[in-house]
Amino acid sequence: MIAGIDGARLIARIEELGATGRDAEGRLTRLAGTDADRAGRDLLSGWLHAAGLRVEIDAIGNIYGIWNPEGATGDPLMIGSHIDTVIDAGQFDGCYGVLAGLSVIEAMQVGLAPARPLAVVAFTNEEGVRYAPDMLGSLVMAGGMAVEEALAIRGTDGITLGAELARIGYAGTLQPGAIRPHAYLELHIEQGPVLEAEGVALGAVETLQGISWQEVTIRGTANHAGTTPMRMRRDAGVAAAGLLVFLDELARRTEGGVATVGQLRFEPGAINVIPGAARFTVDMRNPDEERLQAQEEALADALEDLRRDGFEVTATRLARFEPVRFASEIVTAIETAATERQLSCRRMTSGAGHDAQMVARIAPAAMIFVPSRGGISHNPAEFTDPAALIAGANVLLDTARRLLA
Amino acid sequence: MIAGIDGARLIARIEELGATGRDAEGRLTRLAGTDADRAGRDLLSGWLHAAGLRVEIDAIGNIYGIWNPEGATGDPLMIGSHIDTVIDAGQFDGCYGVLAGLSVIEAMQVGLAPARPLAVVAFTNEEGVRYAPDMLGSLVMAGGMAVEEALAIRGTDGITLGAELARIGYAGTLQPGAIRPHAYLELHIEQGPVLEAEGVALGAVETLQGISWQEVTIRGTANHAGTTPMRMRRDAGVAAAGLLVFLDELARRTEGGVATVGQLRFEPGAINVIPGAARFTVDMRNPDEERLQAQEEALADALEDLRRDGFEVTATRLARFEPVRFASEIVTAIETAATERQLSCRRMTSGAGHDAQMVARIAPAAMIFVPSRGGISHNPAEFTDPAALIAGANVLLDTARRLLA
Repeated sequence: MIAGIDGARLIARIEELGATGRDAEGRLTRLAGTDADRAGRDLLSGWLHAAGLRVEIDAIGNIYGIWNPEGATGDPLMIGSHIDTVIDAGQFDGCYGVLAGLSVIEAMQVGLAPARPLAVVAFTNEEGVRYAPDMLGSLVMAGGMAVEEALAIRGTDGITLGAELARIGYAGTLQPGAIRPHAYLELHIEQGPVLEAEGVALGAVETLQGISWQEVTIRGTANHAGTTPMRMRRDAGVAAAGLLVFLDELARRTEGGVATVGQLRFEPGAINVIPGAARFTVDMRNPDEERLQAQEEALADALEDLRRDGFEVTATRLARFEPVRFASEIVTAIETAATERQLSCRRMTSGAGHDAQMVARIAPAAMIFVPSRGGISHNPAEFTDPAALIAGANVLLDTARRLLA
Repeated sequence: MIAGIDGARLIARIEELGATGRDAEGRLTRLAGTDADRAGRDLLSGWLHAAGLRVEIDAIGNIYGIWNPEGATGDPLMIGSHIDTVIDAGQFDGCYGVLAGLSVIEAMQVGLAPARPLAVVAFTNEEGVRYAPDMLGSLVMAGGMAVEEALAIRGTDGITLGAELARIGYAGTLQPGAIRPHAYLELHIEQGPVLEAEGVALGAVETLQGISWQEVTIRGTANHAGTTPMRMRRDAGVAAAGLLVFLDELARRTEGGVATVGQLRFEPGAINVIPGAARFTVDMRNPDEERLQAQEEALADALEDLRRDGFEVTATRLARFEPVRFASEIVTAIETAATERQLSCRRMTSGAGHDAQMVARIAPAAMIFVPSRGGISHNPAEFTDPAALIAGANVLLDTARRLLA
């Protein structure tokens, strides 16, 4: 029996990696394919080599550290996440999952001889800040996009991902997908407020929300704010406001649903002119595909009502992902592992996208969440208590052992 | 008995003045103190001289054309408006009222010997596009601002109004207010849709709306649109949207009230981030001061409710004008004059600001409105049928005769 992972080393590595790739203003900004990304990758690769793992880089730049103990056969159990970041990031998002995966292998190396190989993986360009779409490395590994197509994607600066991976020395020759996971585990900070608010130590993530993004434009009639009586107005701003209130109420009464209007603009945008047009984005999510479709239909009906009231309305789909249901046997294994460590655990839904949703296309997968203070992420204020980080990594270890048994 | 004003000449002058001061793209843009303004002033002054009027320019650049018939005594009956325009304007706003005033004097010159002088006036910088505040020339004439202060105002280009008036030759020596109106009449296009929609020929303007402008900021909590459950949100965007709907409903149930939110901005303004702040302008108007105050109090109460719900709310006053009640005897004279010409007429409120509201501080004043096609103004599409323009000028003539009787 092994007690657990080396918690002090895990925390030290998170901090060292978090100090790598900072910009001139001291912000952690490790965008995919940049010099900062190379610095992070070099640090990680060094740790993988030092642990005696076989390090492989595939053609999309995903880094694998493989432990093939004597007598182990078959596809590896894969554990991982990503080490690229957003601009002015925190140090936990992604990195925690990769470094915890390494900790799990190192813990097992002390006295276990699992029947299968283990692999820790860091996927390329999960954040999608420089190259769209996000979760690109895992998407390509799962066969969702041809590697040639992915390498030809131009970044926000116009440079292709392929050119940048070659420049920083991480354009590997391994075909993505050649290392096929037997199963996949991803440990991550929640990036939301639920666990902290409920005082629960761990989340066993059983679903990942489906996402529906639309851009809506409502056109009414711009007119003088003083001389146009209320009864003669077709105010696109008020129409949009009514829709915002409706979408919020709809999400509150839809099980598992959320809805957000993050961008809204009025035209012409003068204090004394009735808005002639309102443009806004709609972000609706639900872990259940049928309920997400019901949210979309309710929005479409509300837009149709506006058309009947004389507004001109267009709605354009910006993105659409179906919900992901993770492997129930792995979710159960996570719950059991948490219980054995006397840690409270709740089943939950991930509201954010993760590499696990891509890997779930080709292998049983699930995720473990630890609390995020204040629900804050993608921000230097991102924080999880070291004890909670170590507890999460130990449940990851125990879950991995169950999957290998 | 004189039949009426010379309609064909009035229309021809409106078109000639409308063709004066166009920019390189052919847009009518006669901002106060510009070369385009000088061209318009020169054209008008020529017509005033040709009509045998004494032309006076005061220190703020207001142009007066005075007809002092033999035996006339006392302060003049003043008729006027302005000839400066917005950028890319129509040709009727302001100019119609000045040129109709000249037409009235010319019509009287044929066979009337009124007991008082008449003056037609073109006030400086009514639109306020280049120099703030608007209605500046009439404000200074009415004693609402010292002329030295007004001349020192810097335009959007940094040049003072005083320097520009001197440059274009319209810095007069007459003290503003030295020519004091016995009464004041202003004929104007409605700039709103009411007369056209109701099929009424003329408006006898009895009030001018009070205006309350505020800027409101609501601060909630920015958070991830996917990972933050509805019950844990403090969405500043939805709070603002609820307020827009409330203000619209409030105005609809408040007699004479209107409310407009013309500018609205969310922060940080990302599709997948719950708005942490919403900033917007509120434009509320009412011809009745008590009801306008009631609208303001209802807004304040609604903001207080948001504070109780945990939002941080600030409201800043941007502008506040009390309603103006025009002289009832002049409004009655307008109605009688319209009836005698068998023209339909309704009492109404002006939703826009006009020079008449400044002059009303020092003399009995009222306004006459003619229909604006589609309610459109401050736009090249601004249009009023020539027959309606001539009918309005004839009612102006008859009203002036009543005031002189």
